[in-house]
Amino acid sequence: MSKFALGLDFGTESARAVLVNVATGQTAAQAVHPYADGVIDRILPVSGEALPPEWALQNPGDWLAALGVVVPAVLAQSGVAAQDVVGLGVDFTACTILPTTTEGVPLCEIEAYRRQPHAWPKLWKHHAAWAQADQVNRLALDREEPWLARYGGCISSEWVMPKALQMVEEAADTYIAAGRIVEGADWVVWQLTGRLVRNACAAGYKATWHKADGFPSVDFLAALHPNMVGLYSDKLAGPVVAPGQLVGGLTVKWAQRLRLVEGTPVAVPIIDAHAGVLGAGMSGPGTMFMCMGTSTCHMLMSQNEALVKGIAGVVEDGIVPGLFAYEAGQPAVGDMFAWFIEHAVPQAYCDEANKKGQPLHDFLGEKAANLRPGQSGLLALDWWNGNRSVLVDAELSGLLLGCTLTTTAEEIYRTLIEATAFGTRVIIETFLAQGVPISSIIAGGGLTKNRLLMQIYADVTGRTIAVSGTEQASALGAAVLGAVAAGQHRGGYDSLAEAVAIMVPCPAEVYRPTAEHLALYNALFAEYRRLHDYFGDRQNEVMKVLRRLRRQQAKTSHIS
Amino acid sequence: MSKFALGLDFGTESARAVLVNVATGQTAAQAVHPYADGVIDRILPVSGEALPPEWALQNPGDWLAALGVVVPAVLAQSGVAAQDVVGLGVDFTACTILPTTTEGVPLCEIEAYRRQPHAWPKLWKHHAAWAQADQVNRLALDREEPWLARYGGCISSEWVMPKALQMVEEAADTYIAAGRIVEGADWVVWQLTGRLVRNACAAGYKATWHKADGFPSVDFLAALHPNMVGLYSDKLAGPVVAPGQLVGGLTVKWAQRLRLVEGTPVAVPIIDAHAGVLGAGMSGPGTMFMCMGTSTCHMLMSQNEALVKGIAGVVEDGIVPGLFAYEAGQPAVGDMFAWFIEHAVPQAYCDEANKKGQPLHDFLGEKAANLRPGQSGLLALDWWNGNRSVLVDAELSGLLLGCTLTTTAEEIYRTLIEATAFGTRVIIETFLAQGVPISSIIAGGGLTKNRLLMQIYADVTGRTIAVSGTEQASALGAAVLGAVAAGQHRGGYDSLAEAVAIMVPCPAEVYRPTAEHLALYNALFAEYRRLHDYFGDRQNEVMKVLRRLRRQQAKTSHIS
Repeated sequence: MSKFALGLDFGTESARAVLVNVATGQTAAQAVHPYADGVIDRILPVSGEALPPEWALQNPGDWLAALGVVVPAVLAQSGVAAQDVVGLGVDFTACTILPTTTEGVPLCEIEAYRRQPHAWPKLWKHHAAWAQADQVNRLALDREEPWLARYGGCISSEWVMPKALQMVEEAADTYIAAGRIVEGADWVVWQLTGRLVRNACAAGYKATWHKADGFPSVDFLAALHPNMVGLYSDKLAGPVVAPGQLVGGLTVKWAQRLRLVEGTPVAVPIIDAHAGVLGAGMSGPGTMFMCMGTSTCHMLMSQNEALVKGIAGVVEDGIVPGLFAYEAGQPAVGDMFAWFIEHAVPQAYCDEANKKGQPLHDFLGEKAANLRPGQSGLLALDWWNGNRSVLVDAELSGLLLGCTLTTTAEEIYRTLIEATAFGTRVIIETFLAQGVPISSIIAGGGLTKNRLLMQIYADVTGRTIAVSGTEQASALGAAVLGAVAAGQHRGGYDSLAEAVAIMVPCPAEVYRPTAEHLALYNALFAEYRRLHDYFGDRQNEVMKVLRRLRRQQAKTSHIS
Repeated sequence: MSKFALGLDFGTESARAVLVNVATGQTAAQAVHPYADGVIDRILPVSGEALPPEWALQNPGDWLAALGVVVPAVLAQSGVAAQDVVGLGVDFTACTILPTTTEGVPLCEIEAYRRQPHAWPKLWKHHAAWAQADQVNRLALDREEPWLARYGGCISSEWVMPKALQMVEEAADTYIAAGRIVEGADWVVWQLTGRLVRNACAAGYKATWHKADGFPSVDFLAALHPNMVGLYSDKLAGPVVAPGQLVGGLTVKWAQRLRLVEGTPVAVPIIDAHAGVLGAGMSGPGTMFMCMGTSTCHMLMSQNEALVKGIAGVVEDGIVPGLFAYEAGQPAVGDMFAWFIEHAVPQAYCDEANKKGQPLHDFLGEKAANLRPGQSGLLALDWWNGNRSVLVDAELSGLLLGCTLTTTAEEIYRTLIEATAFGTRVIIETFLAQGVPISSIIAGGGLTKNRLLMQIYADVTGRTIAVSGTEQASALGAAVLGAVAAGQHRGGYDSLAEAVAIMVPCPAEVYRPTAEHLALYNALFAEYRRLHDYFGDRQNEVMKVLRRLRRQQAKTSHIS
């Protein structure tokens, strides 16, 4: 009888389950369910209160509701029996954190707190803690905190400390009432097993945890804010464990709700992008994996710990026990194209695409594919959601340059794609310049279906790019963790490398650079790089000035 | 019996006639007719040949065809008798030039030349002579030509010399075959009267003519290109005369075609924007007139000749005999908003505007009016069609900065409006800094109907702006010239000042700066100015590099 592992992938807009044959890697079934409240960035559902700019929340009830739909769905679809599911792994966006009681009840589900926006899970792309990130960074720099260098010299406003500090400063009561502050990944596994464990991946990348040195010191927290002292000891209490280790078995309640067997092994979870590394077939050093979706995450493993400027993190045990995992990222890639499609494509194009029965992305992509590099005369900085690597600055914003009266939508669309490729090239060059080798590149995630985009990435980077053999690298990676948590004696695997080798398919496709485009893209990249450094490296602070004015005016119009 | 003057206004897309009561200034009738071929910027109509980028041509047959429609239309509409039309004035875009035989037959209407794009009228916004403009400017600088300073130290690629030189270099035979090269304005008047006269306005602003010094020297032309030697003496032959002087009477043929009386006085024409100065009620120094349409032209008269850096020209007799007329300009204003409406407004907005039965401009304007200065976090450089004043550089291009995933179409729309206002503020500050006083501002042209835009201009400049009492300032100005050409003895006026005082209505509306917006716009303007100088003043040549690549690639894709 075949055995199966279940991978549960919690994204920004929806959750997905895949049921994977442990011996062949074949997917028996998959299902997706959108979150009813989606990304909460305008109005708090319970009160109708308008959220300030740059907020982004989620509803934890949506996560569980999706789980309750997708797991029974894959079982029903595949006809796989519950007892043949050997284990279950979870991957999740991060840093997506919520305050709960010490028993794990989200504060936003408690009457006294539900109207307080700070009681809700802050999604990874909540960017309202920028002032707090500044505070943390300034203090850490002043005190020469040793952990700062592991994060490229700068903490992102997306991470635990700024998000927690924002809560302390803006909603002290809610912060104090929070028995725990938990990553969504760890909270879901807590629900499923009754046990709170902190996954080393999120702890390392988002909560400044280090395997040897632990968390930043209490002295540092005290200097930051008196209420922050207990952040690690208290709010973030719980063992930090490498992904794929066993947390425990499924509870009765959840076994019933998911139609699985009680006690089914549940693995220590992992960040979604890092799950993709496993799902793309990597379990060793030297290959860079790009997980390309709403945002792009670049991951790379190495036997050594190096401190690379502007790279968002290096974490031992972050993905594979014993290896140092590096992470860089671009916070808006697919999101930027989606913004463009929603906000800037003219009606005539929509009409023509409709007539052809083509999705707008495809319609624009076809037109953009007919353009040669440089033909549009446009250049963009891909900072619609700030810059994570290598500038680590969420305050930066997008730029489009070269517009003329004949500029078309497909020209802008192609330019935005190129800009994200240039952003990736900056990251690659930064790794190389600081002595972390990259011998090959594998891409995964939804954007790999876009052939134009993939070819542009190969042309811009001058590198061959292999596309992961599965469209659901993260979910497959989560399933791999489920099989490892089960172990060989329960029908899974004892080592991550073995599970990856057997369960992950070969690359689906390979993109090679177009020789005649290399020089053109080198010329364009030189211009990109110059703008990148001018606006990114504090030579011209206009983007920050505009953010400041925007915040002031948003406040004023709130009041008036 | 009332007497009437006819104003004929030749714009970029259409021609207009207004019939104005000479004693009251009231408009008896007006009519517009679009040019059948419009702006020819993609395909040459006669051959279907694709034009290279940055070309913009017109069809002279369209001008005459429009004339044949609009003049009989205003007579029919108003019931005014032909003998009560005392005179006729013409205003026209410039520099819009065409090659003709010595008898005035356009080369593009001659079988041997009609397939040659250079045989067609080059519209003012033909920007393909940029390399020739460079050549002219470099040579003039090397030789320290005295006329260069009158044009802000730089000749635009839109003007006669670069356009003629492009013809010499790319189509020598056609250039040699051209007995005359004529402004559209002078050509139309030539057709109507049988007499070729060069209006001092276009000659001064576009053909580097000076009342005392004449045209640039034959030595200079010879150094530029041997074939250019006869440009002024031969191709541009004909007396240069101030606008409003009498050219002659209407020919029999045209009297019949227009249903007017043979011999009706026809005035020396004027550039459309400069006609607007008269039509807005200005006949003396110190008031700046902004003619705001597809582009904006800023005009100002003074008793003295000053050489203002970056200002496109100063011409004695350019508008009013005896005064020095200054001209500055922004080459894309309404054009930029039209580009935005056509290329970047999402379907949802179009649907909603349709449902409300609102034009998109109004729909977006309403949404944009709810925003406060700085609230969008966006800033733009309004260079979609290059920069005329004060950078005199058609190679510059548009920039939009501050984009985020929440940026909306109305935010971009408002930002583009603000950017054009900042551009105007740069022009005002340049005049003041160089000692040309501006005591008041009057605006005319189609954009003055946009209340949001007008208020933003008042707020950004910190100045009160009066809106011309007529919507058709240029056409009214042309009619004023017609009345002056007729003279008092034929029912018109002997002086321009008298005609203006009587025929032009008072301002329709006055916009005053909003006190609470001044500081915000000062802050935004400081950032605009910094970007303006960085990209405009050769600190970062990215815009030029992109233009170069674009041209290369356009050529490559032409060949391949």
